Amino acid sequence: MTRPIITLTTDFGLKDPYVAEMKAVILHICPEAAIVDVSHQIEKFNIRMGAYILATASPYFPKGTIHIVIVDPAVGTKRRALCIETKNGFFVAPDNGVLILAAKAQGISHVYEITNRKFMLPIISSTFQGRDVFSPAAANLANGVCPSDLGPEVRNLVIPKFARIVKAQYRIVGEVVHIDDFGNVMTNISGSELESVNREKPLKLRVGKTGLMVDFCKTYAEVEPKKPVVLIGSHGFFEISVNQGNAGRMLKVKIGDKVTVYLS
Amino acid sequence: MTRPIITLTTDFGLKDPYVAEMKAVILHICPEAAIVDVSHQIEKFNIRMGAYILATASPYFPKGTIHIVIVDPAVGTKRRALCIETKNGFFVAPDNGVLILAAKAQGISHVYEITNRKFMLPIISSTFQGRDVFSPAAANLANGVCPSDLGPEVRNLVIPKFARIVKAQYRIVGEVVHIDDFGNVMTNISGSELESVNREKPLKLRVGKTGLMVDFCKTYAEVEPKKPVVLIGSHGFFEISVNQGNAGRMLKVKIGDKVTVYLS
Amino acid sequence: MTRPIITLTTDFGLKDPYVAEMKAVILHICPEAAIVDVSHQIEKFNIRMGAYILATASPYFPKGTIHIVIVDPAVGTKRRALCIETKNGFFVAPDNGVLILAAKAQGISHVYEITNRKFMLPIISSTFQGRDVFSPAAANLANGVCPSDLGPEVRNLVIPKFARIVKAQYRIVGEVVHIDDFGNVMTNISGSELESVNREKPLKLRVGKTGLMVDFCKTYAEVEPKKPVVLIGSHGFFEISVNQGNAGRMLKVKIGDKVTVYLS
Repeated sequence: MTRPIITLTTDFGLKDPYVAEMKAVILHICPEAAIVDVSHQIEKFNIRMGAYILATASPYFPKGTIHIVIVDPAVGTKRRALCIETKNGFFVAPDNGVLILAAKAQGISHVYEITNRKFMLPIISSTFQGRDVFSPAAANLANGVCPSDLGPEVRNLVIPKFARIVKAQYRIVGEVVHIDDFGNVMTNISGSELESVNREKPLKLRVGKTGLMVDFCKTYAEVEPKKPVVLIGSHGFFEISVNQGNAGRMLKVKIGDKVTVYLS
Repeated sequence: MTRPIITLTTDFGLKDPYVAEMKAVILHICPEAAIVDVSHQIEKFNIRMGAYILATASPYFPKGTIHIVIVDPAVGTKRRALCIETKNGFFVAPDNGVLILAAKAQGISHVYEITNRKFMLPIISSTFQGRDVFSPAAANLANGVCPSDLGPEVRNLVIPKFARIVKAQYRIVGEVVHIDDFGNVMTNISGSELESVNREKPLKLRVGKTGLMVDFCKTYAEVEPKKPVVLIGSHGFFEISVNQGNAGRMLKVKIGDKVTVYLS
Repeated sequence: MTRPIITLTTDFGLKDPYVAEMKAVILHICPEAAIVDVSHQIEKFNIRMGAYILATASPYFPKGTIHIVIVDPAVGTKRRALCIETKNGFFVAPDNGVLILAAKAQGISHVYEITNRKFMLPIISSTFQGRDVFSPAAANLANGVCPSDLGPEVRNLVIPKFARIVKAQYRIVGEVVHIDDFGNVMTNISGSELESVNREKPLKLRVGKTGLMVDFCKTYAEVEPKKPVVLIGSHGFFEISVNQGNAGRMLKVKIGDKVTVYLS
């Protein structure tokens, strides 16, 4: 059997002992697991950001990887704990939509509600189910437990209304979905939407309140330092950057701002 | 033999190479060790915070886990390097009280001073004994070295004066011991102290300079967003929170502030 | 075969999924690798800081360790991707000098340009070669692939002009190369340069614009709290510190500032 991989995506930060407690529980149940941190700096309670980060990272993990995602403003209420089985692996997370982008991209096979007390810690707190419910579920999956043993199959999972792009004849309107630590402005406009664009001349676009004429490049360094540039980023989406600078700060952009690309 | 687990709790931060140097030394001596970061964001030189974080995380680790704790303002002076053997594992740390809460909770069996040069790096710096003394000691324990081989048994370890709670007929006075990354205000008042409290009506309390009447709930989400709530947190202690908000900032609380719970 | 170790040093930060994507790619190719983060908080595009941090950490890793370093302002341009084989292990990084300090210290055996498509991801983005080129190269080395299979040997690698120290009869002039998270000011003046200094009396020095007379000690705690102290740090270099305080802030020092030690 290959070494199981379990990933963690949370809004816990790294100061507190919470992430370590989850890892302790996982290693207790499945000592040989390789645990990989995706991010613990999801903005607190920001389900969309958690969903985006996970969907970005998950395609690179091997088949069978188990992803735990804890962005859980409703912890301890009646919101359900889910395990999604996909064609490529597993996702365990609260039923608030945080895993839907990543799981859909892999093709969802089954969705289970985690209810079986046998696969939880003996004492379940009402404020930290990442440790008490989700980590033991993931570690048991890593040990070969059948996902259908975790609880009953469910169908009506929560689907959040994440932004869709709007296409008109002369423009595409999308949204800023993430601004990375370099200040690169990530949009939800797929590179394939822009295949007809003439990349030889500057592209006209609007980001938030800023109108821009920007060169369409392949790399950040094709423009002068501190100059804006647009490109198809490493995950296939349209991205606005500044060579060796911070596009997010320079353009005063925030997540959720509209992005319009003018096609003519 | 099961895979040994070594945890790290330090005030080093993550920018510098120090944590990696400790891991390098550990893997050099014990290549199969699973190394788990508890936290590297202990406030610089804050022994109490290190002690609290470690005591919170350590109960979740499997039997035999070896915990390294480096919050060490007196590094290189004559303060001793200790190895504590408990009923459940090992703690290695400077003799300044940083491991006392966690080790006592597991039941201390023996305390050794680490003096045996054989289990240290060949060159010992006077400013980084986490790498030169504590990491090799932990990795050798992981390899099965007897703790009594590290040095002589000692008895008079440093016991820091951490806050105790004071109980009177109508109130319990404790202290803020930690404010987590969500702004949750953690106290040293155990949930069991509040068993006689009528949780159906608002609880009267004082935190620092702020007086409050707050609902006693089981989960953050039982009150409206941005409203304060008190509950017994996931580690069994009385905690003051704000649903989807930051209680620490809202109540202007800092570590060490008094917390009074009025019982009538 | 011993468990291969792969280290990561980047300017990516920990918020984004980038580091996890590299780890996913590595574990896909070499599931048993132990991956150690050296630092992901290199200042964006600061090649000198990346070089310094890596050179500090790398000597502690076991023989055979493979170091990946991604500080890559010119990603996607014609800058080469390198694999350096040393007497002690391997370094993979863009050809911008970021690995030169660490690799030279180990003794460079061969330098290869990574060009073999067989050892890259099927799709190579122009903005994230840490994931698409360097991680697969490192993981394949960990699997035993010969470095000469990655591409042709090259000789003219980029050598950055890092600061050298200047020695005169009565003084040594060096530079601040790093300020750590404690505020300790690290210089490029080796301890061996100061062997003739009389450490019994205060040392006269200048850091940036500040002149100081400071005690030469072995440990931070030999001076009063909040007092400056100079010592030979844990990596053998001359360092200016403040006991339980922040020397960088107190002396208003920044990386690149001149440091003059007066010898008489």
